[in-house]
Amino acid sequence: MYPLTTTAISEAYNRVRQHSETICEPLETEDYVPQPVPFVSPPKWHLAHSTWFFETFIIKPFLPGYQVFDTDYNYLFNSYYNNVGERTLRTDRGNVTRPTTKNVYAYRQHVDRHMSDLLETLADPEALSLVELGLHHEQQHQELLVTDIKYILGHNPLFPVYKSGHNLVNDSNDETGFAHIPEGVYEVGFQGEGFCFDNELGRHKVYLHDFEISKALVTNAEFIQFMESGCYEDFNLWLDEGWSWVNANAINSPMYWHKINGAWHYYTLDGLQEVNPQAILSHINFFEASAFAQWKGMRLPTESEWEIASQQFGWGKRWEWTNSAYLPYPGFSKAPGAVGEYNGKFMINQMVLRGASVATSPGHSRNTYRNFFHAHERWQYTGIRLVK
Amino acid sequence: MYPLTTTAISEAYNRVRQHSETICEPLETEDYVPQPVPFVSPPKWHLAHSTWFFETFIIKPFLPGYQVFDTDYNYLFNSYYNNVGERTLRTDRGNVTRPTTKNVYAYRQHVDRHMSDLLETLADPEALSLVELGLHHEQQHQELLVTDIKYILGHNPLFPVYKSGHNLVNDSNDETGFAHIPEGVYEVGFQGEGFCFDNELGRHKVYLHDFEISKALVTNAEFIQFMESGCYEDFNLWLDEGWSWVNANAINSPMYWHKINGAWHYYTLDGLQEVNPQAILSHINFFEASAFAQWKGMRLPTESEWEIASQQFGWGKRWEWTNSAYLPYPGFSKAPGAVGEYNGKFMINQMVLRGASVATSPGHSRNTYRNFFHAHERWQYTGIRLVK
Amino acid sequence: MYPLTTTAISEAYNRVRQHSETICEPLETEDYVPQPVPFVSPPKWHLAHSTWFFETFIIKPFLPGYQVFDTDYNYLFNSYYNNVGERTLRTDRGNVTRPTTKNVYAYRQHVDRHMSDLLETLADPEALSLVELGLHHEQQHQELLVTDIKYILGHNPLFPVYKSGHNLVNDSNDETGFAHIPEGVYEVGFQGEGFCFDNELGRHKVYLHDFEISKALVTNAEFIQFMESGCYEDFNLWLDEGWSWVNANAINSPMYWHKINGAWHYYTLDGLQEVNPQAILSHINFFEASAFAQWKGMRLPTESEWEIASQQFGWGKRWEWTNSAYLPYPGFSKAPGAVGEYNGKFMINQMVLRGASVATSPGHSRNTYRNFFHAHERWQYTGIRLVK
Amino acid sequence: MYPLTTTAISEAYNRVRQHSETICEPLETEDYVPQPVPFVSPPKWHLAHSTWFFETFIIKPFLPGYQVFDTDYNYLFNSYYNNVGERTLRTDRGNVTRPTTKNVYAYRQHVDRHMSDLLETLADPEALSLVELGLHHEQQHQELLVTDIKYILGHNPLFPVYKSGHNLVNDSNDETGFAHIPEGVYEVGFQGEGFCFDNELGRHKVYLHDFEISKALVTNAEFIQFMESGCYEDFNLWLDEGWSWVNANAINSPMYWHKINGAWHYYTLDGLQEVNPQAILSHINFFEASAFAQWKGMRLPTESEWEIASQQFGWGKRWEWTNSAYLPYPGFSKAPGAVGEYNGKFMINQMVLRGASVATSPGHSRNTYRNFFHAHERWQYTGIRLVK
Repeated sequence: MYPLTTTAISEAYNRVRQHSETICEPLETEDYVPQPVPFVSPPKWHLAHSTWFFETFIIKPFLPGYQVFDTDYNYLFNSYYNNVGERTLRTDRGNVTRPTTKNVYAYRQHVDRHMSDLLETLADPEALSLVELGLHHEQQHQELLVTDIKYILGHNPLFPVYKSGHNLVNDSNDETGFAHIPEGVYEVGFQGEGFCFDNELGRHKVYLHDFEISKALVTNAEFIQFMESGCYEDFNLWLDEGWSWVNANAINSPMYWHKINGAWHYYTLDGLQEVNPQAILSHINFFEASAFAQWKGMRLPTESEWEIASQQFGWGKRWEWTNSAYLPYPGFSKAPGAVGEYNGKFMINQMVLRGASVATSPGHSRNTYRNFFHAHERWQYTGIRLVK
Repeated sequence: MYPLTTTAISEAYNRVRQHSETICEPLETEDYVPQPVPFVSPPKWHLAHSTWFFETFIIKPFLPGYQVFDTDYNYLFNSYYNNVGERTLRTDRGNVTRPTTKNVYAYRQHVDRHMSDLLETLADPEALSLVELGLHHEQQHQELLVTDIKYILGHNPLFPVYKSGHNLVNDSNDETGFAHIPEGVYEVGFQGEGFCFDNELGRHKVYLHDFEISKALVTNAEFIQFMESGCYEDFNLWLDEGWSWVNANAINSPMYWHKINGAWHYYTLDGLQEVNPQAILSHINFFEASAFAQWKGMRLPTESEWEIASQQFGWGKRWEWTNSAYLPYPGFSKAPGAVGEYNGKFMINQMVLRGASVATSPGHSRNTYRNFFHAHERWQYTGIRLVK
Repeated sequence: MYPLTTTAISEAYNRVRQHSETICEPLETEDYVPQPVPFVSPPKWHLAHSTWFFETFIIKPFLPGYQVFDTDYNYLFNSYYNNVGERTLRTDRGNVTRPTTKNVYAYRQHVDRHMSDLLETLADPEALSLVELGLHHEQQHQELLVTDIKYILGHNPLFPVYKSGHNLVNDSNDETGFAHIPEGVYEVGFQGEGFCFDNELGRHKVYLHDFEISKALVTNAEFIQFMESGCYEDFNLWLDEGWSWVNANAINSPMYWHKINGAWHYYTLDGLQEVNPQAILSHINFFEASAFAQWKGMRLPTESEWEIASQQFGWGKRWEWTNSAYLPYPGFSKAPGAVGEYNGKFMINQMVLRGASVATSPGHSRNTYRNFFHAHERWQYTGIRLVK
Repeated sequence: MYPLTTTAISEAYNRVRQHSETICEPLETEDYVPQPVPFVSPPKWHLAHSTWFFETFIIKPFLPGYQVFDTDYNYLFNSYYNNVGERTLRTDRGNVTRPTTKNVYAYRQHVDRHMSDLLETLADPEALSLVELGLHHEQQHQELLVTDIKYILGHNPLFPVYKSGHNLVNDSNDETGFAHIPEGVYEVGFQGEGFCFDNELGRHKVYLHDFEISKALVTNAEFIQFMESGCYEDFNLWLDEGWSWVNANAINSPMYWHKINGAWHYYTLDGLQEVNPQAILSHINFFEASAFAQWKGMRLPTESEWEIASQQFGWGKRWEWTNSAYLPYPGFSKAPGAVGEYNGKFMINQMVLRGASVATSPGHSRNTYRNFFHAHERWQYTGIRLVK
């Protein structure tokens, strides 16, 4: 995807880095600060952390004589890399008001200037591949920027508009019906020239049994039927942990939905709107996806099924819950050092999502891409595709 | 396993029911009461709950005119069957001192008497298959009885002996070396005449790649090496959640291990003993199993790999952690009603274990049997088999 | 109260020690075990702990050559005396099934035998005064035995009867009207010959303003009026912490009250009964007492007011919440060593109760006695006396 | 203090309102947002809440035809007045990024403009007295502004300077020795013409016994002796809850203290500095104050003792912990409605502090002023004065 030529990589670098700042353009300074729940990070933190990645893994090792911008930033903007030293408690990110947003933008400029110099001559393939990784890493944080901003604004009692016309929930299906996949041995996992994450590697054979997979994603209208049939109150449809989650949190609708004067509304980045029945359902977690499938008498696809079938339908409007746990492919092995902490250590108690969402940066996903979240999480743009 | 003839099933019923009481024979009345942690149940509760299963699912529907032993018992001894009504909070089981142990034994006799009458003439195949399920269910609780008793006594500062000579941790390996399994399409899942749980059904094809699997389980000596190499302090070996678990609980050894005057001891059902280096390691959780494999440069088998390879080694001394999440087989579907709550609703955030343990009731397991626990749990007799 | 003559103290020793066992007579073995909430202790523990007090503070120092009954018991049955070494976590008391109840009774006999020998000749005034303290200490645990047994049985879904005819909630008022106390300087605190706790000492002067104090305690009928007037839903009546407690726990009645078929019932030691409107209200906490007073347009007495007025009314049917925090009297000082941990270290965030209750051992209380509990606790027999 | 003439009250209004903004002048926009712990509020919130008080209690009822600035602000900026409707969860204040700081300043201007108009003609004595209350209320929030800003900046790993020269911890004692107060009946509580809070009213007689009270507050040097004598490890000195607090939080020094290269430093509003031994100790809680007094063989004064003795020493450099619980004076009664929620409902589980601190707004305190905090809190400028 980012062919490793000097010009191409410089161009990609500029484009990707600029995109993060474009996402933040509509924000007020205050919006950059809070961390309302542990899984959401302050926008300021995302901007700094993705910058720290380049400073730490590329500039420091490959640019001789480089002076770090601020020695405290390693402590402040390391996310989870134990190999790179101590770091701020994850739950304290929202309390760190300094460096200010302005300082963070200065940090970005400082690092961009040095990266720009470095990229002119950088030829070391390991370094180039780390730059590539850094750009994909930044794109992952771009998606989180969008969903975290939505969380921060969407939980404000004023329901502020992020940007007019920037409504990321109203996409509808272009296709209908089911695709049929015949039984047999198939190959899954990444192959080819471009970039992929380590968790996609180890292309391998799987045996799939016959299945039919829907070309359309579940819509709001269908989910309202589920709700109106009392499915949030019927334990028979739910996984045991899901049923506990529903009851402990008194859940009766997807995230961001509010019943106002008898009509369902949802918070969008364009403000509060009436729910569009034709639009693709979003912001449900694995428990809800699983209960919905149970109610329909169908099931969710496995990630292998999804990958093999993915050529038969358009995808990319929502991250789609699969019924596969996030586990290593045969032959998976962690890279040594900090970069090895990227994916492998999260391979427990999470479910795989496939596809991409309206918040995914352009060109970031692939049909072998393995996204993963916990079964109870629903602040991403997540959707449901059924199999029978 | 329990051929559905009148005599055979009566004999099986008597044998299995008696075994539960044999397990409890060495207990003092006080030992029947407590629930030191939510995942451990009071022995009194196990004895009553397995009895309630027969009363509720067999006697009440199939013995006309039956008067329940005590109408409150449904509330008290239902475990997790939402279809059968309200129940005591799981975490309150240890606070319910009445009915007493004596009452519970009377309840067992009452139910056994009626079951005995009923079994003389019972011919309805659905009923017979529920009896069979009830016996397997009771056997599952027999294993929990052993491990819960061990937990209760093993966390008592006096380390009381359960029964002399009843040491369930000193088994050693009979075999060495690795078995090789060639790449190809295999079939997994239960088939045949006997009993199996619904989660074993849907025999299906899987594609396995070449692998070598150890004929021996990891021993205490090997694990002491892991400990002495500082592996409990090296985050690079651990899953992220595992690393949090180690630190939050200050873990530095398997459960029941205590360093006394410089020597490792462990609590056994025969009291506190010095650790036997040749014995098979036990009481480690998935996080520890995974870190150990990482340190060895190997990995845990998937459940399909284990099942296919299982004919090439003896098994049954420990439940063996696999690297497979507990998820439905292709074609799995829940039975309607309460019995359908048996397995399916737990298919999230748990890992599969294969084999059997020294605490498993005779004849209870199979090589298609899918046991499952959460990644952090280690009060079962759990072990490690490695794959390379 | 326990005049320090050899005969009198031996007689008192036997009487008090016997009373603890009489309280436990109606229990089943299982009832001795659990600790359903941290503030309730297992009856077995009370019996052992009060025995440990005599072994530790009297027999060990004053009986040369004494062999302790079991060296582990210091660890198991120390309550909160840091000076006497490590101890079981308070919240784990309910999980310690061994020593059994039988062992604990044997421990009592062993200690009683040695105490009996010792008391024949004991003349050391410090030792005698420790014996006296030990007996008052045991009497305090006798009251807790009663209330903890009530908690254990009263939270059992079967509402078992402790002992027929042993209904400790149906006392009614013998007096009506208000006593008037004129403004002036008064003296409060213990004086005289008998026993008192260190927290009653430092008799001192206080200045009281005119007040009128009710001769009767609040009845169930009055409290039902409070409930039916919606007072549990009116924040204006409640302290801020009380309002949080009401809402977090969905409180709408005193402890042990249940509305059954439209009628209020309460659990008594004689089983579930319909609420007696004439009986004195019990099992309310300080928050409820304070809200009730606020609703009546009156207030609770201070502990000095109560003490001075106490000669003008009968008391002893309920511990009465005062509006005084539990703090040291002028001149209070802690005794050195473990005995000094008896009272002083609890003088923060608790409220004083005066009087005695139907569960108080005969002769245990005085009108200078300072009982204390946290504002949210209500498992004691607590009542309300109003001042205007 | 604020004589109720039109000119004087206008002048006071302008001065007090301006002072809040002066405190915030050195802040960056980001500093206005977070709530790192529930007891700290965002500066933005303080600025808005004190403004809401004037809008709600004065402008809305007394200025006919007034349009509220924003109807959502009642929900957002009500603190704890149940009588004024629903409000944001206290723990969510730090997540509300909109209205922005700029909006909040506009809100202040809007309200100030209307107050200014209103004050020209306001003659209703109830209204004037509410204005006076509003100004004292704002001064209380000014002190919290200072201490909350210190908390936010002082827990930032960068230890940013709030304002150079603004070091509020280096005051030292001007006096030495002890004042002697003879036994007798004294009067305490507010009397006179000026303003006081309702909790100071009910001037009443108390009987005090002889005592000697230190004219000096405890210094850092004295507290370092306490620390170096191992007092944080000696349970005998601590209240039971205090000892739990020390251990649960691994406390070994006052708040804001850090040992760096062997020397004690503390965070001040002027940045990190070496501890000044002569300076008055600050940022200790009641538990620490009580343990220190115990170690010295002295005690803390009661609030009555402090009030009577206060004419014999200078005070105002630190809020001084007394050994009195925060409880109503004889004759205390809550005002009806929302204003009655000001003080009375907090009269449980808090301790009284007397004096004033370097962060108290000029002219705000009196020697009858009753400040109160929980025993574990220490982010205020708190100090220790001893009695023997």
